[in-house]
Amino acid sequence: MDGTTGAETLQASALAARYGAAAPPAGPWNATIAGLLGHRSVRGYRPDPLPAGTLETLVAAAQSAATSSNLQTWSVVTVEDPATRAAMAEIAGGQAHIAECPLFLVFLADVSRNQRLGEAEARALEGLPYLETFLVAAIDAALAAQNAVVAAESLGLATVYIGALRNDPARVAALLGLPPGAAGVFGLCVGYPKPGAEGEVKPRLPQAVVLHRGRYDAAAEPAARRAYDAEMTGFSRRNEMAADSWTQRVIARIGTVRALRGRDRLAATLRSLGFPLR
Amino acid sequence: MDGTTGAETLQASALAARYGAAAPPAGPWNATIAGLLGHRSVRGYRPDPLPAGTLETLVAAAQSAATSSNLQTWSVVTVEDPATRAAMAEIAGGQAHIAECPLFLVFLADVSRNQRLGEAEARALEGLPYLETFLVAAIDAALAAQNAVVAAESLGLATVYIGALRNDPARVAALLGLPPGAAGVFGLCVGYPKPGAEGEVKPRLPQAVVLHRGRYDAAAEPAARRAYDAEMTGFSRRNEMAADSWTQRVIARIGTVRALRGRDRLAATLRSLGFPLR
Repeated sequence: MDGTTGAETLQASALAARYGAAAPPAGPWNATIAGLLGHRSVRGYRPDPLPAGTLETLVAAAQSAATSSNLQTWSVVTVEDPATRAAMAEIAGGQAHIAECPLFLVFLADVSRNQRLGEAEARALEGLPYLETFLVAAIDAALAAQNAVVAAESLGLATVYIGALRNDPARVAALLGLPPGAAGVFGLCVGYPKPGAEGEVKPRLPQAVVLHRGRYDAAAEPAARRAYDAEMTGFSRRNEMAADSWTQRVIARIGTVRALRGRDRLAATLRSLGFPLR
Repeated sequence: MDGTTGAETLQASALAARYGAAAPPAGPWNATIAGLLGHRSVRGYRPDPLPAGTLETLVAAAQSAATSSNLQTWSVVTVEDPATRAAMAEIAGGQAHIAECPLFLVFLADVSRNQRLGEAEARALEGLPYLETFLVAAIDAALAAQNAVVAAESLGLATVYIGALRNDPARVAALLGLPPGAAGVFGLCVGYPKPGAEGEVKPRLPQAVVLHRGRYDAAAEPAARRAYDAEMTGFSRRNEMAADSWTQRVIARIGTVRALRGRDRLAATLRSLGFPLR
Protein backbone atom coordinates (compact mmCIF):
# COMPACT_ATOMS: atom_id res chain seq x y z
CA MET A 1 0.00 0.00 0.00
CA ASP A 2 1.54 3.31 -1.04
CA GLY A 3 -1.49 5.43 -0.05
CA THR A 4 -2.39 6.23 -3.67
CA THR A 5 -6.15 6.21 -4.24
CA GLY A 6 -7.89 5.31 -7.50
CA ALA A 7 -8.80 8.98 -7.99
CA GLU A 8 -5.15 10.01 -7.62
CA THR A 9 -4.14 7.44 -10.22
CA LEU A 10 -6.75 8.74 -12.67
CA GLN A 11 -5.57 12.31 -12.09
CA ALA A 12 -1.93 11.36 -12.65
CA SER A 13 -2.93 9.52 -15.84
CA ALA A 14 -4.87 12.53 -17.14
CA LEU A 15 -1.93 14.87 -16.52
CA ALA A 16 0.51 12.40 -18.09
CA ALA A 17 -1.70 12.08 -21.19
CA ARG A 18 -1.73 15.86 -21.60
CA TYR A 19 1.91 16.58 -20.80
CA GLY A 20 3.90 13.36 -21.12
CA ALA A 21 7.01 13.43 -18.96
CA ALA A 22 6.55 17.16 -18.25
CA ALA A 23 3.32 16.73 -16.25
CA PRO A 24 2.88 19.29 -13.45
CA PRO A 25 2.29 18.10 -9.88
CA ALA A 26 -1.30 17.11 -9.04
CA GLY A 27 -3.41 19.99 -7.67
CA PRO A 28 -7.13 20.23 -6.85
CA TRP A 29 -9.27 17.91 -8.95
CA ASN A 30 -12.87 16.94 -9.63
CA ALA A 31 -15.05 15.38 -12.33
CA THR A 32 -15.52 18.64 -14.26
CA ILE A 33 -11.74 19.20 -14.40
CA ALA A 34 -11.22 15.57 -15.43
CA GLY A 35 -13.65 16.22 -18.29
CA LEU A 36 -11.72 19.32 -19.38
CA LEU A 37 -8.40 17.46 -19.30
CA GLY A 38 -9.86 14.61 -21.36
CA HIS A 39 -10.79 16.79 -24.36
CA ARG A 40 -10.04 15.46 -27.84
CA SER A 41 -11.11 17.04 -31.12
CA VAL A 42 -13.04 14.38 -33.05
CA ARG A 43 -13.18 14.28 -36.86
CA GLY A 44 -15.57 11.33 -37.47
CA TYR A 45 -19.22 11.18 -36.35
CA ARG A 46 -22.03 8.65 -36.29
CA PRO A 47 -25.28 9.95 -37.83
CA ASP A 48 -27.26 9.41 -34.60
CA PRO A 49 -29.32 12.46 -33.69
CA LEU A 50 -28.81 14.29 -30.41
CA PRO A 51 -31.35 13.98 -27.59
CA ALA A 52 -34.21 16.50 -27.70
CA GLY A 53 -33.26 19.82 -26.12
CA THR A 54 -29.50 19.33 -26.52
CA LEU A 55 -29.10 22.35 -28.80
CA GLU A 56 -30.99 24.61 -26.38
CA THR A 57 -28.91 23.36 -23.45
CA LEU A 58 -25.65 24.00 -25.33
CA VAL A 59 -26.81 27.51 -26.23
CA ALA A 60 -27.84 28.18 -22.62
CA ALA A 61 -24.35 27.11 -21.52
CA ALA A 62 -22.83 29.31 -24.24
CA GLN A 63 -24.88 32.35 -23.24
CA SER A 64 -23.86 31.82 -19.61
CA ALA A 65 -20.22 32.60 -20.42
CA ALA A 66 -18.98 36.08 -19.61
CA THR A 67 -19.53 38.71 -22.32
CA SER A 68 -17.75 42.06 -22.41
CA SER A 69 -19.99 44.76 -20.85
CA ASN A 70 -22.92 42.38 -21.47
CA LEU A 71 -22.89 43.52 -25.12
CA GLN A 72 -23.52 39.93 -26.31
CA THR A 73 -22.06 40.63 -29.75
CA TRP A 74 -22.13 37.05 -30.97
CA SER A 75 -24.72 34.73 -32.48
CA VAL A 76 -24.82 31.11 -33.61
CA VAL A 77 -26.43 29.52 -36.66
CA THR A 78 -27.30 25.84 -37.03
CA VAL A 79 -26.71 24.39 -40.48
CA GLU A 80 -29.05 21.56 -41.45
CA ASP A 81 -29.50 21.82 -45.24
CA PRO A 82 -27.29 19.13 -46.85
CA ALA A 83 -26.20 21.36 -49.73
CA THR A 84 -25.15 24.09 -47.30
CA ARG A 85 -23.28 21.52 -45.21
CA ALA A 86 -21.50 20.30 -48.35
CA ALA A 87 -20.55 23.87 -49.24
CA MET A 88 -19.18 24.44 -45.74
CA ALA A 89 -17.15 21.22 -45.96
CA GLU A 90 -15.73 22.42 -49.28
CA ILE A 91 -14.86 25.86 -47.85
CA ALA A 92 -13.03 24.05 -45.05
CA GLY A 93 -10.86 22.13 -47.51
CA GLY A 94 -12.93 18.95 -47.69
CA GLN A 95 -13.62 18.13 -44.04
CA ALA A 96 -16.24 15.37 -44.38
CA HIS A 97 -17.20 15.51 -40.69
CA ILE A 98 -18.90 18.87 -41.37
CA ALA A 99 -21.39 17.04 -43.60
CA GLU A 100 -21.79 13.99 -41.37
CA CYS A 101 -22.10 15.34 -37.81
CA PRO A 102 -25.67 15.57 -36.45
CA LEU A 103 -25.23 19.19 -35.28
CA PHE A 104 -23.11 21.79 -37.08
CA LEU A 105 -22.94 25.29 -35.62
CA VAL A 106 -21.40 28.44 -37.05
CA PHE A 107 -20.41 30.98 -34.40
CA LEU A 108 -20.62 34.58 -35.51
CA ALA A 109 -18.96 37.78 -34.42
CA ASP A 110 -22.15 39.81 -34.60
CA VAL A 111 -22.35 43.56 -34.06
CA SER A 112 -25.36 43.79 -36.38
CA ARG A 113 -27.81 43.29 -33.51
CA ASN A 114 -26.43 46.29 -31.68
CA GLN A 115 -26.35 48.20 -34.97
CA ARG A 116 -30.08 47.52 -35.37
CA LEU A 117 -30.61 48.62 -31.76
CA GLY A 118 -28.88 51.92 -32.54
CA GLU A 119 -30.97 52.41 -35.66
CA ALA A 120 -34.22 51.66 -33.79
CA GLU A 121 -33.24 54.18 -31.11
CA ALA A 122 -31.97 56.72 -33.66
CA ARG A 123 -28.55 56.73 -31.97
CA ALA A 124 -25.25 56.48 -33.80
CA LEU A 125 -22.98 53.88 -32.19
CA GLU A 126 -19.56 55.40 -32.82
CA GLY A 127 -17.72 52.46 -31.23
CA LEU A 128 -18.90 49.89 -33.75
CA PRO A 129 -16.36 50.33 -36.58
CA TYR A 130 -13.27 49.66 -34.44
CA LEU A 131 -10.97 46.62 -34.34
CA GLU A 132 -11.66 46.56 -30.58
CA THR A 133 -15.35 45.93 -31.19
CA PHE A 134 -14.68 43.13 -33.66
CA LEU A 135 -12.16 41.62 -31.24
CA VAL A 136 -14.68 41.73 -28.38
CA ALA A 137 -17.19 39.97 -30.62
CA ALA A 138 -14.72 37.27 -31.65
CA ILE A 139 -13.50 36.70 -28.07
CA ASP A 140 -17.05 36.56 -26.72
CA ALA A 141 -17.99 34.07 -29.46
CA ALA A 142 -15.02 31.95 -28.38
CA LEU A 143 -15.92 32.07 -24.67
CA ALA A 144 -19.49 31.10 -25.54
CA ALA A 145 -18.44 28.29 -27.87
CA GLN A 146 -16.04 26.84 -25.32
CA ASN A 147 -18.86 26.65 -22.76
CA ALA A 148 -20.94 24.82 -25.39
CA VAL A 149 -18.02 22.42 -25.94
CA VAL A 150 -17.64 21.76 -22.21
CA ALA A 151 -21.39 21.15 -21.90
CA ALA A 152 -21.42 18.83 -24.94
CA GLU A 153 -18.47 16.80 -23.73
CA SER A 154 -20.02 16.51 -20.26
CA LEU A 155 -22.98 14.83 -22.02
CA GLY A 156 -20.75 12.28 -23.74
CA LEU A 157 -20.72 14.14 -27.05
CA ALA A 158 -17.62 14.98 -29.07
CA THR A 159 -16.74 18.21 -30.87
CA VAL A 160 -14.27 19.81 -33.24
CA TYR A 161 -13.81 23.48 -34.06
CA ILE A 162 -13.69 24.40 -37.75
CA GLY A 163 -11.44 27.45 -38.06
CA ALA A 164 -11.16 26.72 -41.78
CA LEU A 165 -14.51 28.48 -42.33
CA ARG A 166 -12.27 31.57 -42.34
CA ASN A 167 -10.88 30.35 -45.67
CA ASP A 168 -13.91 32.11 -47.20
CA PRO A 169 -16.03 34.12 -44.73
CA ALA A 170 -17.82 35.94 -47.57
CA ARG A 171 -19.21 32.66 -48.91
CA VAL A 172 -20.17 31.57 -45.38
CA ALA A 173 -22.03 34.88 -44.94
CA ALA A 174 -23.86 34.41 -48.24
CA LEU A 175 -24.82 30.81 -47.39
CA LEU A 176 -26.27 31.83 -44.01
CA GLY A 177 -27.88 35.10 -45.12
CA LEU A 178 -25.83 37.17 -42.69
CA PRO A 179 -26.47 40.90 -42.40
CA PRO A 180 -23.57 43.41 -42.56
CA GLY A 181 -21.75 43.35 -39.22
CA ALA A 182 -21.97 39.59 -38.80
CA ALA A 183 -19.27 37.10 -39.84
CA GLY A 184 -18.59 33.45 -39.11
CA VAL A 185 -15.45 33.19 -36.97
CA PHE A 186 -15.45 29.38 -36.71
CA GLY A 187 -17.70 26.35 -36.97
CA LEU A 188 -18.29 23.56 -34.46
CA CYS A 189 -19.21 19.93 -35.16
CA VAL A 190 -21.10 18.14 -32.37
CA GLY A 191 -22.07 14.46 -32.22
CA TYR A 192 -21.20 10.95 -31.17
CA PRO A 193 -17.76 9.78 -32.29
CA LYS A 194 -17.44 6.98 -34.83
CA PRO A 195 -15.63 3.93 -33.45
CA GLY A 196 -11.93 4.72 -33.41
CA ALA A 197 -12.43 8.42 -34.17
CA GLU A 198 -11.76 9.61 -30.65
CA GLY A 199 -8.03 8.96 -30.59
CA GLU A 200 -5.59 9.80 -27.84
CA VAL A 201 -5.48 13.01 -25.82
CA LYS A 202 -3.02 15.28 -27.69
CA PRO A 203 -0.02 16.40 -25.66
CA ARG A 204 0.56 20.12 -25.16
CA LEU A 205 3.66 22.22 -24.56
CA PRO A 206 5.09 22.01 -21.02
CA GLN A 207 3.61 24.54 -18.62
CA ALA A 208 7.11 26.01 -18.22
CA VAL A 209 6.81 27.76 -21.60
CA VAL A 210 3.13 28.77 -21.51
CA LEU A 211 2.85 29.92 -17.88
CA HIS A 212 5.02 32.86 -16.88
CA ARG A 213 5.35 34.05 -13.28
CA GLY A 214 5.49 37.79 -12.81
CA ARG A 215 7.26 38.54 -16.09
CA TYR A 216 7.55 36.85 -19.47
CA ASP A 217 10.51 34.46 -19.56
CA ALA A 218 11.39 32.33 -22.60
CA ALA A 219 14.52 30.73 -21.06
CA ALA A 220 12.90 27.29 -20.74
CA GLU A 221 11.87 27.19 -24.39
CA PRO A 222 14.73 25.48 -26.26
CA ALA A 223 14.81 22.43 -23.96
CA ALA A 224 11.01 22.32 -23.66
CA ARG A 225 10.57 22.42 -27.42
CA ARG A 226 13.01 19.51 -27.91
CA ALA A 227 11.10 17.47 -25.32
CA TYR A 228 7.73 18.40 -26.83
CA ASP A 229 8.90 17.59 -30.35
CA ALA A 230 9.72 14.08 -29.10
CA GLU A 231 6.28 13.76 -27.44
CA MET A 232 4.49 14.94 -30.59
CA THR A 233 6.53 12.74 -32.91
CA GLY A 234 5.44 9.75 -30.82
CA PHE A 235 1.82 10.94 -30.76
CA SER A 236 1.83 11.45 -34.53
CA ARG A 237 3.36 8.04 -35.15
CA ARG A 238 0.68 6.37 -32.99
CA ASN A 239 -2.30 8.39 -34.28
CA GLU A 240 -1.64 9.90 -37.68
CA MET A 241 -0.07 9.22 -41.04
CA ALA A 242 3.16 11.19 -40.74
CA ALA A 243 5.41 11.13 -37.67
CA ASP A 244 6.06 14.88 -37.70
CA SER A 245 7.47 16.88 -34.81
CA TRP A 246 5.66 19.94 -33.51
CA THR A 247 8.38 22.15 -34.98
CA GLN A 248 7.73 20.64 -38.42
CA ARG A 249 3.97 21.13 -38.04
CA VAL A 250 4.30 24.78 -37.04
CA ILE A 251 6.55 25.48 -40.03
CA ALA A 252 4.14 23.66 -42.36
CA ARG A 253 1.15 25.58 -40.99
CA ILE A 254 2.48 29.16 -40.97
CA GLY A 255 5.70 28.94 -42.97
CA THR A 256 4.14 30.20 -46.19
CA VAL A 257 1.34 32.57 -47.15
CA ARG A 258 -0.08 29.80 -49.34
CA ALA A 259 -0.57 27.63 -46.23
CA LEU A 260 -3.05 30.24 -44.95
CA ARG A 261 -5.43 29.04 -47.71
CA GLY A 262 -6.90 32.43 -48.40
CA ARG A 263 -6.92 33.67 -44.83
CA ASP A 264 -4.24 36.19 -45.78
CA ARG A 265 -7.23 38.13 -47.20
CA LEU A 266 -9.19 38.03 -43.91
CA ALA A 267 -8.84 41.74 -43.11
CA ALA A 268 -10.17 42.79 -46.53
CA THR A 269 -12.98 40.23 -46.34
CA LEU A 270 -14.08 41.33 -42.87
CA ARG A 271 -14.14 44.94 -44.09
CA SER A 272 -16.42 43.88 -46.96
CA LEU A 273 -18.72 42.18 -44.41
CA GLY A 274 -19.23 45.33 -42.37
CA PHE A 275 -16.29 45.34 -39.95
CA PRO A 276 -14.11 48.39 -40.78
CA LEU A 277 -11.49 47.25 -38.19
CA ARG A 278 -10.55 50.89 -37.67
CA MET B 1 -47.38 15.04 -6.49
CA ASP B 2 -46.82 16.48 -9.97
CA GLY B 3 -43.93 14.17 -10.86
CA THR B 4 -41.34 16.97 -10.73
CA THR B 5 -38.08 15.87 -9.15
CA GLY B 6 -35.77 18.07 -7.13
CA ALA B 7 -33.24 18.01 -10.00
CA GLU B 8 -35.89 19.22 -12.45
CA THR B 9 -36.78 22.08 -10.12
CA LEU B 10 -33.13 23.12 -9.88
CA GLN B 11 -32.77 22.98 -13.66
CA ALA B 12 -35.88 25.09 -14.19
CA SER B 13 -34.60 27.60 -11.62
CA ALA B 14 -31.21 27.83 -13.37
CA LEU B 15 -32.84 28.46 -16.75
CA ALA B 16 -35.24 31.01 -15.26
CA ALA B 17 -32.35 32.85 -13.59
CA ARG B 18 -30.52 33.07 -16.94
CA TYR B 19 -33.48 33.91 -19.17
CA GLY B 20 -36.36 35.18 -17.01
CA ALA B 21 -39.71 34.58 -18.65
CA ALA B 22 -38.02 33.60 -21.95
CA ALA B 23 -36.39 30.41 -20.57
CA PRO B 24 -36.07 27.60 -23.14
CA PRO B 25 -37.54 24.16 -22.39
CA ALA B 26 -35.40 21.90 -20.20
CA GLY B 27 -33.00 19.65 -22.14
CA PRO B 28 -30.22 17.30 -20.99
CA TRP B 29 -28.63 18.35 -17.71
CA ASN B 30 -25.87 17.45 -15.27
CA ALA B 31 -23.69 19.00 -12.57
CA THR B 32 -21.15 20.42 -15.03
CA ILE B 33 -23.91 22.16 -17.02
CA ALA B 34 -25.48 23.43 -13.80
CA GLY B 35 -22.09 24.96 -12.96
CA LEU B 36 -21.86 26.66 -16.38
CA LEU B 37 -25.39 28.08 -16.05
CA GLY B 38 -24.60 29.40 -12.57
CA HIS B 39 -21.70 31.63 -13.69
CA ARG B 40 -21.49 35.13 -12.27
CA SER B 41 -18.62 37.57 -12.75
CA VAL B 42 -17.43 38.59 -9.26
CA ARG B 43 -15.84 41.97 -8.52
CA GLY B 44 -14.92 41.60 -4.81
CA TYR B 45 -12.49 39.03 -3.37
CA ARG B 46 -11.33 37.83 0.04
CA PRO B 47 -7.53 37.80 0.40
CA ASP B 48 -7.47 34.05 1.20
CA PRO B 49 -4.82 32.25 -0.87
CA LEU B 50 -5.79 29.44 -3.24
CA PRO B 51 -4.99 25.80 -2.37
CA ALA B 52 -1.55 24.59 -3.48
CA GLY B 53 -1.52 23.45 -7.10
CA THR B 54 -4.61 25.45 -8.11
CA LEU B 55 -2.72 27.57 -10.65
CA GLU B 56 -1.19 24.50 -12.32
CA THR B 57 -4.59 22.80 -12.48
CA LEU B 58 -6.20 25.87 -14.06
CA VAL B 59 -3.39 26.06 -16.63
CA ALA B 60 -3.72 22.32 -17.39
CA ALA B 61 -7.44 22.88 -18.00
CA ALA B 62 -6.63 25.91 -20.17
CA GLN B 63 -4.07 24.02 -22.24
CA SER B 64 -6.57 21.19 -22.74
CA ALA B 65 -8.85 23.46 -24.78
CA ALA B 66 -8.70 23.14 -28.56
CA THR B 67 -6.03 25.25 -30.27
CA SER B 68 -5.98 25.97 -33.99
CA SER B 69 -3.64 23.51 -35.78
CA ASN B 70 -2.05 22.89 -32.34
CA LEU B 71 -0.12 26.16 -32.81
CA GLN B 72 -0.69 27.09 -29.13
CA THR B 73 -0.18 30.79 -29.83
CA TRP B 74 -1.18 31.99 -26.38
CA SER B 75 0.53 32.34 -23.01
CA VAL B 76 -0.48 33.44 -19.53
CA VAL B 77 1.36 35.56 -16.96
CA THR B 78 0.63 35.65 -13.23
CA VAL B 79 0.91 39.07 -11.62
CA GLU B 80 1.97 39.04 -7.97
CA ASP B 81 3.97 42.24 -7.45
CA PRO B 82 1.67 44.75 -5.66
CA ALA B 83 2.91 47.74 -7.66
CA THR B 84 2.26 45.90 -10.93
CA ARG B 85 -1.20 44.92 -9.69
CA ALA B 86 -1.89 48.55 -8.81
CA ALA B 87 -0.76 49.65 -12.27
CA MET B 88 -3.03 47.04 -13.88
CA ALA B 89 -5.98 48.22 -11.76
CA GLU B 90 -5.26 51.79 -12.90
CA ILE B 91 -5.08 50.76 -16.58
CA ALA B 92 -8.46 49.09 -16.12
CA GLY B 93 -10.05 52.31 -14.88
CA GLY B 94 -9.66 51.67 -11.13
CA GLN B 95 -10.93 48.11 -10.70
CA ALA B 96 -9.87 47.41 -7.09
CA HIS B 97 -10.51 43.66 -7.41
CA ILE B 98 -7.42 43.41 -9.65
CA ALA B 99 -5.30 44.43 -6.67
CA GLU B 100 -7.18 42.36 -4.09
CA CYS B 101 -7.78 38.95 -5.74
CA PRO B 102 -5.33 36.20 -4.72
CA LEU B 103 -4.60 35.21 -8.35
CA PHE B 104 -4.49 37.63 -11.27
CA LEU B 105 -3.70 36.27 -14.71
CA VAL B 106 -3.01 38.10 -17.96
CA PHE B 107 -3.80 36.05 -21.06
CA LEU B 108 -1.62 36.83 -24.06
CA ALA B 109 -2.03 36.44 -27.77
CA ASP B 110 1.50 35.16 -28.29
CA VAL B 111 3.05 34.45 -31.67
CA SER B 112 6.52 35.25 -30.31
CA ARG B 113 7.13 31.62 -29.31
CA ASN B 114 6.56 30.46 -32.86
CA GLN B 115 8.65 33.38 -34.12
CA ARG B 116 11.54 32.17 -31.93
CA LEU B 117 10.97 28.64 -33.27
CA GLY B 118 11.31 29.98 -36.82
CA GLU B 119 14.47 31.87 -35.93
CA ALA B 120 16.02 28.83 -34.24
CA GLU B 121 15.24 26.72 -37.33
CA ALA B 122 16.31 29.48 -39.74
CA ARG B 123 12.87 29.41 -41.38
CA ALA B 124 10.84 32.49 -42.20
CA LEU B 125 7.24 32.12 -41.02
CA GLU B 126 5.39 34.10 -43.68
CA GLY B 127 2.00 33.56 -42.02
CA LEU B 128 2.85 35.42 -38.82
CA PRO B 129 2.14 39.05 -39.82
CA TYR B 130 -1.51 38.49 -40.78
CA LEU B 131 -4.72 39.49 -38.98
CA GLU B 132 -5.70 35.81 -39.23
CA THR B 133 -2.73 34.78 -37.10
CA PHE B 134 -3.50 37.40 -34.45
CA LEU B 135 -7.16 36.36 -34.46
CA VAL B 136 -6.22 32.69 -34.00
CA ALA B 137 -4.04 33.69 -31.06
CA ALA B 138 -6.79 35.79 -29.45
CA ILE B 139 -9.47 33.11 -29.98
CA ASP B 140 -7.19 30.37 -28.64
CA ALA B 141 -6.40 32.52 -25.59
CA ALA B 142 -10.16 32.90 -25.05
CA LEU B 143 -10.87 29.16 -25.37
CA ALA B 144 -8.05 28.45 -22.92
CA ALA B 145 -9.16 31.10 -20.45
CA GLN B 146 -12.75 29.88 -20.50
CA ASN B 147 -11.57 26.38 -19.60
CA ALA B 148 -9.64 27.91 -16.69
CA VAL B 149 -12.80 29.75 -15.62
CA VAL B 150 -14.89 26.58 -15.75
CA ALA B 151 -12.25 24.71 -13.74
CA ALA B 152 -11.99 27.52 -11.17
CA GLU B 153 -15.74 27.77 -10.70
CA SER B 154 -16.01 23.98 -10.36
CA LEU B 155 -13.63 24.35 -7.38
CA GLY B 156 -15.85 26.96 -5.71
CA LEU B 157 -13.74 29.89 -6.89
CA ALA B 158 -15.07 33.01 -8.58
CA THR B 159 -13.66 34.90 -11.57
CA VAL B 160 -14.02 38.04 -13.63
CA TYR B 161 -12.48 38.84 -17.00
CA ILE B 162 -10.71 42.19 -17.31
CA GLY B 163 -11.09 43.33 -20.91
CA ALA B 164 -10.12 46.83 -19.79
CA LEU B 165 -6.44 45.82 -19.94
CA ARG B 166 -6.93 46.68 -23.62
CA ASN B 167 -7.23 50.33 -22.56
CA ASP B 168 -3.41 50.35 -22.69
CA PRO B 169 -1.82 47.13 -24.04
CA ALA B 170 1.54 48.87 -24.53
CA ARG B 171 1.80 49.60 -20.80
CA VAL B 172 0.69 46.05 -19.98
CA ALA B 173 3.43 44.73 -22.28
CA ALA B 174 6.05 46.93 -20.61
CA LEU B 175 4.93 45.89 -17.11
CA LEU B 176 5.18 42.18 -17.97
CA GLY B 177 8.34 42.36 -20.10
CA LEU B 178 6.58 40.98 -23.16
CA PRO B 179 8.61 40.32 -26.32
CA PRO B 180 7.39 41.59 -29.73
CA GLY B 181 4.54 39.38 -30.93
CA ALA B 182 2.94 39.02 -27.51
CA ALA B 183 0.10 41.23 -26.20
CA GLY B 184 -2.31 40.99 -23.28
CA VAL B 185 -5.81 40.42 -24.64
CA PHE B 186 -7.57 40.31 -21.25
CA GLY B 187 -6.94 39.70 -17.58
CA LEU B 188 -8.67 37.29 -15.21
CA CYS B 189 -9.21 37.65 -11.46
CA VAL B 190 -9.56 34.38 -9.51
CA GLY B 191 -10.42 33.98 -5.83
CA TYR B 192 -13.06 33.52 -3.17
CA PRO B 193 -15.89 36.05 -3.34
CA LYS B 194 -16.34 38.56 -0.56
CA PRO B 195 -19.67 38.19 1.26
CA GLY B 196 -22.34 39.75 -0.93
CA ALA B 197 -20.03 40.08 -3.95
CA GLU B 198 -21.46 37.14 -5.85
CA GLY B 199 -24.79 38.72 -6.78
CA GLU B 200 -27.51 37.27 -8.95
CA VAL B 201 -27.03 35.39 -12.20
CA LYS B 202 -27.28 38.04 -14.95
CA PRO B 203 -30.06 37.47 -17.48
CA ARG B 204 -29.11 37.13 -21.13
CA LEU B 205 -30.96 37.84 -24.37
CA PRO B 206 -33.65 35.28 -25.30
CA GLN B 207 -32.31 32.38 -27.37
CA ALA B 208 -34.67 33.47 -30.17
CA VAL B 209 -32.32 36.33 -31.09
CA VAL B 210 -28.94 34.62 -30.54
CA LEU B 211 -29.69 31.18 -32.03
CA HIS B 212 -30.60 31.10 -35.73
CA ARG B 213 -31.79 27.96 -37.47
CA GLY B 214 -30.49 27.48 -41.00
CA ARG B 215 -30.28 31.17 -41.86
CA TYR B 216 -29.87 34.40 -39.93
CA ASP B 217 -33.25 35.84 -38.95
CA ALA B 218 -33.66 39.03 -36.90
CA ALA B 219 -37.48 39.04 -36.96
CA ALA B 220 -37.79 38.20 -33.25
CA GLU B 221 -35.53 41.04 -32.18
CA PRO B 222 -37.82 44.02 -31.49
CA ALA B 223 -40.12 42.09 -29.14
CA ALA B 224 -37.22 40.19 -27.56
CA ARG B 225 -35.32 43.40 -26.88
CA ARG B 226 -38.32 44.98 -25.16
CA ALA B 227 -38.72 41.90 -22.95
CA TYR B 228 -34.98 41.78 -22.20
CA ASP B 229 -34.86 45.48 -21.40
CA ALA B 230 -37.53 44.84 -18.76
CA GLU B 231 -35.55 41.88 -17.35
CA MET B 232 -32.33 43.90 -17.20
CA THR B 233 -33.99 46.94 -15.67
CA GLY B 234 -35.24 44.69 -12.87
CA PHE B 235 -31.83 43.05 -12.49
CA SER B 236 -30.09 46.43 -12.37
CA ARG B 237 -32.55 47.76 -9.79
CA ARG B 238 -31.97 44.73 -7.56
CA ASN B 239 -28.17 44.54 -7.98
CA GLU B 240 -26.68 47.85 -9.07
CA MET B 241 -26.87 51.57 -8.57
CA ALA B 242 -28.75 52.62 -11.70
CA ALA B 243 -31.85 50.82 -13.03
CA ASP B 244 -30.76 50.99 -16.67
CA SER B 245 -32.20 48.93 -19.49
CA TRP B 246 -29.94 46.85 -21.74
CA THR B 247 -30.60 49.28 -24.60
CA GLN B 248 -29.35 52.14 -22.43
CA ARG B 249 -26.25 50.16 -21.42
CA VAL B 250 -25.35 49.29 -25.01
CA ILE B 251 -25.66 52.92 -26.07
CA ALA B 252 -23.55 54.04 -23.10
CA ARG B 253 -20.86 51.46 -23.85
CA ILE B 254 -20.41 51.88 -27.61
CA GLY B 255 -22.30 55.07 -28.40
CA THR B 256 -19.21 57.26 -28.40
CA VAL B 257 -15.54 56.85 -29.27
CA ARG B 258 -14.72 58.31 -25.86
CA ALA B 259 -16.48 55.38 -24.18
CA LEU B 260 -13.89 53.05 -25.74
CA ARG B 261 -11.37 54.56 -23.27
CA GLY B 262 -8.43 54.43 -25.63
CA ARG B 263 -9.34 51.16 -27.29
CA ASP B 264 -10.04 53.07 -30.50
CA ARG B 265 -6.22 53.00 -30.84
CA LEU B 266 -6.01 49.20 -30.45
CA ALA B 267 -5.02 48.49 -34.07
CA ALA B 268 -2.11 50.95 -33.95
CA THR B 269 -1.02 49.67 -30.54
CA LEU B 270 -1.05 46.03 -31.64
CA ARG B 271 1.05 46.96 -34.67
CA SER B 272 3.57 48.63 -32.35
CA LEU B 273 3.69 45.40 -30.28
CA GLY B 274 4.64 43.23 -33.26
CA PHE B 275 1.28 42.31 -34.81
CA PRO B 276 1.17 43.88 -38.30
CA LEU B 277 -2.48 42.72 -38.74
CA ARG B 278 -1.89 42.51 -42.48
